[in-house]
Amino acid sequence: MLAVTILGNNSALPMHDRHPTSQLVTNGEQLFLVDCGEGTQIQMNRFKIRRSRIHHIFISHLHGDHYFGLAGLLNSYSLTNRKDPIHLYGPEPLWEVLQLQFKAAAAILSYPLHFHPLGEAGILLDEKKMTVESFLVHHRIPCWGFLFREKEKLRKVDPKKAFEAGVPPEFFASLKEGEDYMDPEGRIIRNSDVTKPAPRSVSYAYCADTKYDESLVPSIAGADLIYHEATYLDDQRERAIQRFHSTAKQAAMIAQKAQVKRLLLGHFSSKYEFLDAFREEAAEVFPDVEVCREGVTYLV
Amino acid sequence: MLAVTILGNNSALPMHDRHPTSQLVTNGEQLFLVDCGEGTQIQMNRFKIRRSRIHHIFISHLHGDHYFGLAGLLNSYSLTNRKDPIHLYGPEPLWEVLQLQFKAAAAILSYPLHFHPLGEAGILLDEKKMTVESFLVHHRIPCWGFLFREKEKLRKVDPKKAFEAGVPPEFFASLKEGEDYMDPEGRIIRNSDVTKPAPRSVSYAYCADTKYDESLVPSIAGADLIYHEATYLDDQRERAIQRFHSTAKQAAMIAQKAQVKRLLLGHFSSKYEFLDAFREEAAEVFPDVEVCREGVTYLV
Repeated sequence: MLAVTILGNNSALPMHDRHPTSQLVTNGEQLFLVDCGEGTQIQMNRFKIRRSRIHHIFISHLHGDHYFGLAGLLNSYSLTNRKDPIHLYGPEPLWEVLQLQFKAAAAILSYPLHFHPLGEAGILLDEKKMTVESFLVHHRIPCWGFLFREKEKLRKVDPKKAFEAGVPPEFFASLKEGEDYMDPEGRIIRNSDVTKPAPRSVSYAYCADTKYDESLVPSIAGADLIYHEATYLDDQRERAIQRFHSTAKQAAMIAQKAQVKRLLLGHFSSKYEFLDAFREEAAEVFPDVEVCREGVTYLV
Repeated sequence: MLAVTILGNNSALPMHDRHPTSQLVTNGEQLFLVDCGEGTQIQMNRFKIRRSRIHHIFISHLHGDHYFGLAGLLNSYSLTNRKDPIHLYGPEPLWEVLQLQFKAAAAILSYPLHFHPLGEAGILLDEKKMTVESFLVHHRIPCWGFLFREKEKLRKVDPKKAFEAGVPPEFFASLKEGEDYMDPEGRIIRNSDVTKPAPRSVSYAYCADTKYDESLVPSIAGADLIYHEATYLDDQRERAIQRFHSTAKQAAMIAQKAQVKRLLLGHFSSKYEFLDAFREEAAEVFPDVEVCREGVTYLV
């Protein structure tokens, strides 16, 4: 089961007790950090995030409000004597910036930090239960989105029924894969009689900072939840175009065209103190929409 | 009149709702920012600091907890379309880090940013009413302290007495400088009869991160207020030595040897949730000591 916890829902200028972009995608015990604006580690304290469980960090692009908290977080891991490796995925120049900062501080990290530069769209991470893919979005500088997708799950064995039908426990792994069981007398126990269907696999797409761009649609089509930026309301569409950002209405149009199940809006401009209008505007186009709030976890 | 407002009083790992190092020195309408740890701009929001009045920023050294908030603050100035120049004083590699960050973001600032690399100790800034000097302190990497010193002030004219004695207003500027007045009949009006002595000029020394080092004493001798780091209590003296930091007792010993008037302690390790012991330990050596608190302004 995937979930998304918002650490920062604002655009670049922190205001109204909102913070620059950062969020955590969780899959069971695993935490994946997506973007890391200034103050992310402080938000982690505030929301009691178990940061030691993060092993993978994804940075969408090199506007400061998406990564100025990264060097501090990496430093803090070292101060707390972390040993587990961190895998960092980001635009190529990020590594140069970090190396320069470490050198200036004469810093030696207590743990291995592996950098994976982002390039063409593709699979970044292939774990036992899920994958993470990158896709390109359209912003003022090179920018990537990330798609978190659970792998196909196994069927659930009903242990009572399976036992009564005479299936030995050592065959349960095969039951989960969908196989029927043939007992020593040649009698067939049908898989569907002793198992339940696999739970549905879900996916979450983080669309980062992007202008309205329908070429994004195939990358996120059918996702269970997407996060799409909505820096402005639609009366500021011209400004959004100039700055390679989107409006709430545009985010909803993308969600509708991609036939996703739910939409989360974020990256709100500091000019807006209140956010209700974002939800209202988007809901006219795509009803299953929420304005993301810091500290809230959204189940995918 | 100088004053110091604390924005962050903690060492590198933000905790217990304490933040990395940053403080503001104010002189009338002027604000000087000293160090800029991660989250400084968010602390400025919290404490309603008028950041447009900052024209000079001083960075003591390139450990992240003293400057990881700088790029974000400089960006935010640009987002709010600042036009006034900023003068930035810091270790030479800071400029390279910033340039790389601006380049990666394809950022063009809306205002002139002038960088002044720190070198030998000396005067950094010579304003009408005050000077700012740098001095070297002893940390693991090159590190500077800063001394803010009011210039000699002028005597205060008592306008009623001066008028009654027949001194014309156009001579008041000379009275402030200490001159006597001779009237057309050759009669002398003694300056001290129609003026009050100049208010005392005060000084504030920010000693940055430093190990216990008595060679610091001449740089700060006689200051009205000093800020000296006290990362640890004195039972952690060995650790302090290893990390080029100081204990509360050591900070007090420096204050005593330098015969300063008052001592502010800061840069507390995250291992300490409560800070009373810092004051108590230091006060045994140097009684006029305070533990600095975020959001509090200390008059020099």
